[in-house]
Amino acid sequence: MNDVRYVSGFVAPDPVLLIMGTKKHYLVVSSMEVGRAQRECYSNVEVLTPEALLLPAKQRWKVASHVQAIAKRDRIESFEVGADFPVGIVEDLKRRKIRVVLSREATCPERRIKREAEIKQIAYTQRAAVAGMRRALELLETASIGSGGTLRLEGRPLTAERVKEAIQMELLKWGCSGQELIVAGGEQAVDPHERGSGALRAHEAIILDIFPRHEQSGYWGDITRTVCRGEAPTRLKNLYQTVLKAQKEALASVRAGICGDEIHSRIVERFGQAGFVTGEVEGKQVGFIHGTGHGVGLDIHEGPRIGRSGEVLRQGDVVTVEPGLYYPGLGGVRIEDTVAVEKDGFRWLARCAKKFELRKQ
Amino acid sequence: MNDVRYVSGFVAPDPVLLIMGTKKHYLVVSSMEVGRAQRECYSNVEVLTPEALLLPAKQRWKVASHVQAIAKRDRIESFEVGADFPVGIVEDLKRRKIRVVLSREATCPERRIKREAEIKQIAYTQRAAVAGMRRALELLETASIGSGGTLRLEGRPLTAERVKEAIQMELLKWGCSGQELIVAGGEQAVDPHERGSGALRAHEAIILDIFPRHEQSGYWGDITRTVCRGEAPTRLKNLYQTVLKAQKEALASVRAGICGDEIHSRIVERFGQAGFVTGEVEGKQVGFIHGTGHGVGLDIHEGPRIGRSGEVLRQGDVVTVEPGLYYPGLGGVRIEDTVAVEKDGFRWLARCAKKFELRKQ
Repeated sequence: MNDVRYVSGFVAPDPVLLIMGTKKHYLVVSSMEVGRAQRECYSNVEVLTPEALLLPAKQRWKVASHVQAIAKRDRIESFEVGADFPVGIVEDLKRRKIRVVLSREATCPERRIKREAEIKQIAYTQRAAVAGMRRALELLETASIGSGGTLRLEGRPLTAERVKEAIQMELLKWGCSGQELIVAGGEQAVDPHERGSGALRAHEAIILDIFPRHEQSGYWGDITRTVCRGEAPTRLKNLYQTVLKAQKEALASVRAGICGDEIHSRIVERFGQAGFVTGEVEGKQVGFIHGTGHGVGLDIHEGPRIGRSGEVLRQGDVVTVEPGLYYPGLGGVRIEDTVAVEKDGFRWLARCAKKFELRKQ
Repeated sequence: MNDVRYVSGFVAPDPVLLIMGTKKHYLVVSSMEVGRAQRECYSNVEVLTPEALLLPAKQRWKVASHVQAIAKRDRIESFEVGADFPVGIVEDLKRRKIRVVLSREATCPERRIKREAEIKQIAYTQRAAVAGMRRALELLETASIGSGGTLRLEGRPLTAERVKEAIQMELLKWGCSGQELIVAGGEQAVDPHERGSGALRAHEAIILDIFPRHEQSGYWGDITRTVCRGEAPTRLKNLYQTVLKAQKEALASVRAGICGDEIHSRIVERFGQAGFVTGEVEGKQVGFIHGTGHGVGLDIHEGPRIGRSGEVLRQGDVVTVEPGLYYPGLGGVRIEDTVAVEKDGFRWLARCAKKFELRKQ
């Protein structure tokens, strides 16, 4: 869907057919969508409907018949499809004797390098994410510590759900949605994709991972902070300081030309030197169990990866830098910013303070 | 993704491999996800990682190698894939001499018929949608009509964006997100998928289409009302009454055993009899330019369709019933409810009044 949006300008709520040519592209939409498609599409896109392709009623809803009609009309001899193209349509095309070549390239590799206008859009969403983060920190700072260490606000337990709702309300003001936030404390935070639920507690690490999408532009942002309301045990403080230092180092090494693999390996090494091992302990993966970063754009996870199979970074990449450490019984810490890769370094898209222990304001 | 969630119970933020067997299923996730997958998956799902499949590093990220390892270990001779399965993985499986059969069936056809617990989830989201609708109507009723017919509220123009934000705030309270709402007035409403923007105006039709998703359950709801702040021209009133009558008739015909095609054809006929033609006028599709309804569940658009290529309805289907008429220069009207199909009729999931002209409260 996002390839379609990027190449044609058309925002498709349902699947559509996009054929990319060297000089022009073709977009086949239902007759209901044709008006909007003509308004939204870039000038190098020919908008077509099954009706305009003069297809008989029985063929009207078959994607392969759309391809066949265009191939015949414009004498196109073969089509390349990406690895993620649906096998059913490929089979149908072959039955129609249309030549299909399976490409090893991404469908739209140019999406990776962001134009200045795109970086501005991502920076806007990132500022929204920071505003959401500030709102969450406000709640955590204002909370009091109840009996048994449960956080309380306005006479009720402060839950992950309440913090998420406050973040989402803030994001809405920015025209952003944040459906899949993470507010996970204590043992929940040990699982990096656990979204978190229930009462939040003092003296343990709480991971706040906010990745909103701007509704109109479609571009995402991504930020994570880890905080502790009250006083953290020494081992947890140490864990935080180790991740904080690693993120600083990783950010300092970001520049066009460096390999994502290299940035990641260095962090793994540093964690090891600091005594934080990664591996299986009692059947559970612990330590630094994810990559150091990923591209952000119209998709929240896109290329390039900064990890074991990382690519060389290039100017115009927008990437997260997010080392993390996770140990059952101790907690999880992750610190993440999203930055634009430049020739000799990187550019912040939005700044947000890093502070671990939160005291009552 | 939603097939994976339905079959395994696991909510996957990134692509995963699910293999469905007659007795048990296999889910291959990254080692980072394994803890959560084991907690969330149903008992008939074996959760695996590339590491547990003892794959060498080079093969670890290839989906086909996961399939190959499972096939070898459990002596599985062939695999069926759906029409939308990625062609690249199929080709890789063939290179590995694994037999792949292309299925004509949906991957998970049982998703269509909803269990009682699922209907409850959809009904909850539908109630949230109704709450959002009431909030929108409140704003429109409270608005005053400024010079030139622009709606105003609290000293500022009442825009589509403001109404959407108010709806979204209400949805958030229900744990729902409504990223892609439609609040489209006047000529914007003539295009059924135009989401709407800018100042809203009196004396013209405004389409409010709210389709939220409950974050935790993943189930959608869907409702549309069309209203007019102030007085509607007679032709527009007539358009509204025609659609309202059509929706009543369509709802009255919903029951297990009827074909979606039949419900749809009747509406098309009624519209024709009332003088509202469907077809191309000056290069634009006008009239009843979409289907009468669609299934709603973990996807906002799923089977069965109530339209030209509609299937026979069955007990446990949850469908929208949403006739509409769209004419440039006049406006667009759509009225939609989501209901559960029963043996002899249907069950409302949530009730919401239908009122066209809104007077100042």
